Amino acid sequence: MESPDNERWARVVASLAENNLSALVCRLPENVVMLSGYWPVLGRSVVVLPTEGEPALTAPASEVSAVERGWIPDVRTFHAWRVGDDDPEASISRLLVQVMADRRLTGRRIGYEGSFGDVAVPQRVLEAWAGTPSMVDPSIPGSSAEWVDFGPQLSRLAGEKTEREITRIRTANEVGDFGLAIFFSETAPGRRESEIAAAVEAEIHTRGIGYKGTRNARSEAEVISGPRTADSWDFPTSSDRVIQEGDLVVMELAVVADGYWADLTRTVVAGRPSDEQLHLFSAQRAAYEAALEAIRHGARAADVDGAARRALEPFGLSQLFVHHTGHGVGFRYHEPIPFIHPSSTGILGTGMITSLEPGLYGAHFGLRVEDNVVVTQAGAEPLCHSPRWSHLEAL
Amino acid sequence: MESPDNERWARVVASLAENNLSALVCRLPENVVMLSGYWPVLGRSVVVLPTEGEPALTAPASEVSAVERGWIPDVRTFHAWRVGDDDPEASISRLLVQVMADRRLTGRRIGYEGSFGDVAVPQRVLEAWAGTPSMVDPSIPGSSAEWVDFGPQLSRLAGEKTEREITRIRTANEVGDFGLAIFFSETAPGRRESEIAAAVEAEIHTRGIGYKGTRNARSEAEVISGPRTADSWDFPTSSDRVIQEGDLVVMELAVVADGYWADLTRTVVAGRPSDEQLHLFSAQRAAYEAALEAIRHGARAADVDGAARRALEPFGLSQLFVHHTGHGVGFRYHEPIPFIHPSSTGILGTGMITSLEPGLYGAHFGLRVEDNVVVTQAGAEPLCHSPRWSHLEAL
Repeated sequence: MESPDNERWARVVASLAENNLSALVCRLPENVVMLSGYWPVLGRSVVVLPTEGEPALTAPASEVSAVERGWIPDVRTFHAWRVGDDDPEASISRLLVQVMADRRLTGRRIGYEGSFGDVAVPQRVLEAWAGTPSMVDPSIPGSSAEWVDFGPQLSRLAGEKTEREITRIRTANEVGDFGLAIFFSETAPGRRESEIAAAVEAEIHTRGIGYKGTRNARSEAEVISGPRTADSWDFPTSSDRVIQEGDLVVMELAVVADGYWADLTRTVVAGRPSDEQLHLFSAQRAAYEAALEAIRHGARAADVDGAARRALEPFGLSQLFVHHTGHGVGFRYHEPIPFIHPSSTGILGTGMITSLEPGLYGAHFGLRVEDNVVVTQAGAEPLCHSPRWSHLEAL
Repeated sequence: MESPDNERWARVVASLAENNLSALVCRLPENVVMLSGYWPVLGRSVVVLPTEGEPALTAPASEVSAVERGWIPDVRTFHAWRVGDDDPEASISRLLVQVMADRRLTGRRIGYEGSFGDVAVPQRVLEAWAGTPSMVDPSIPGSSAEWVDFGPQLSRLAGEKTEREITRIRTANEVGDFGLAIFFSETAPGRRESEIAAAVEAEIHTRGIGYKGTRNARSEAEVISGPRTADSWDFPTSSDRVIQEGDLVVMELAVVADGYWADLTRTVVAGRPSDEQLHLFSAQRAAYEAALEAIRHGARAADVDGAARRALEPFGLSQLFVHHTGHGVGFRYHEPIPFIHPSSTGILGTGMITSLEPGLYGAHFGLRVEDNVVVTQAGAEPLCHSPRWSHLEAL
């Protein structure tokens, strides 16, 4: 078990105190990761972080080895799914009532995740556990407390990462590098989109587990080729299309390593790029570099977005950049803070991690290069190391 | 676009009428699949099924090709995520208000998914969209209606599959066969658990997309070996453990093909099985076969469970079978109906699909073979074709 991320706890406790709350109770996997460093397998784990006294964690007994990747010593487990075991919800309630009593939280004001939309999935990616009426009404049967929605504060707190968190998100980006290398080596005329995506995901699972202590690594690769790239900003999935000579091929890649996320994109040409394709890559690189140059502590998010768009003007391509320049990432695949967009009113701060993803989309083509960068006092640092514009560098 | 599954609509409409409801509004991906045959990509699609008039579907414009895999002609789309697009929730509400007016549902009693726990994920498996307060309180801004929780009825309706649904779930099982073949060929001393799991998932993605019209196929394989198999009933994940000569190796496999699911398990020995291992396989086969023999229309679920347990007695191993014999599967990885368990009060009916998964778990070993079988008038039919006890068949 690691030592606690005291910086994260201190920040959350300060915000709880400001809001006159005595504790925070979190069940969403992304928030359990943030508060405990442990990525739930089934998603039925709860962290109680009191403003006074030690935090506590409830988890299924089957997850004790996963819990070791975190840093909360007070772990209370329950058995379920065997013949004769109690219903998991009843076991969780029983443990939480005891935690509430132990920490003298009965009858106090408690923060919970009342306002959430998307849910980060647990390790069992194909079966997410999510909102139920009893989650929206979080009251624990047998315990009394006043429940207060702490969701907006949690989003804001999650937006600024601690050193520990940056290290783990960097690991997720490096695991992403394993997959990007396979994308570069496997993409060629004659291959199917689904085949390349499958090879990338396999590499990340195989090499990611065990990398810098990572217990579990998974990814979702969407490989989009040829005319399909025109919609590659709009969440298409890989198909069985066979890649043709000269196709643009975009790969959107979500990576999760022990609950910390990366969101990466690369675009290559299958075969030899045309002059027109090289022109597109040059423009995209200019937008990326202008935005990267503009990012620093204190910068206005809208200004960073504007820098990317202005850089496209000399190329005559600014109307092809249809979406935002960046969004928060790290505890989730997409987070709301920061948001680098023309209408954003936000200010960038040290420790924020943003995607940086200018893209260009025409009627029959599209391309994008996306990194995750951490905001520093002086500028910004990309967290992965893969090539970005290898066709331009080969000129 | 396929012709509608009129049998499914008729069953749901009959249940709505019995409950004095004028329509059903569903957003959970699993229910959108059941009512429309279309597997949402982002999970932000809604089906309105009125008791009078045609059903309607709202979906992101980016998903029009996925919608083609379904059978609702009245599709209303919205754009989102471009600079200047409305918030998706606002667009969804606007479309639904129009559907409610078109179908004269304003002010009527409408069923919705008020009681749900686990959520089946959309195609973007790493980012599920799930419960929000506005989902639990489903009222559509700008529209008036009385909302009634139809969740329990939906679970019961989902428990009995139509012919169309059985065909699609069979396809998911056959896609699972592709992965099981790789598990058999790749499992050997010296290989890592994560490496085998990755190869299985890659095969399913590569060969599943395009198989019998499947647009998207994904899976989650958990490969558990050696002493870790003792806990293989309890949701462990693949690790980087290197498989040793003589190890038992269990693979739990979730497969989803266009929103229809399979839940399969196989166990093999890496190398030559010992007499003790063969004894375990023989006992597990006896339990599986006794349960399969007991399944038919009208059978009590508890009797099927009892048949499996009794078959273990001559082997002296019944105390090692710690969990249920089976659960529903098809629209989800795990469904509540049927549930084949000692305490079940349910009766099996034609068209139900159940897992069949007796397992044996000791202090240092575990094994399980799991199929999905459809209940028929005369008996039961497994939906996949992979070998089950190849070590016994090789004797």
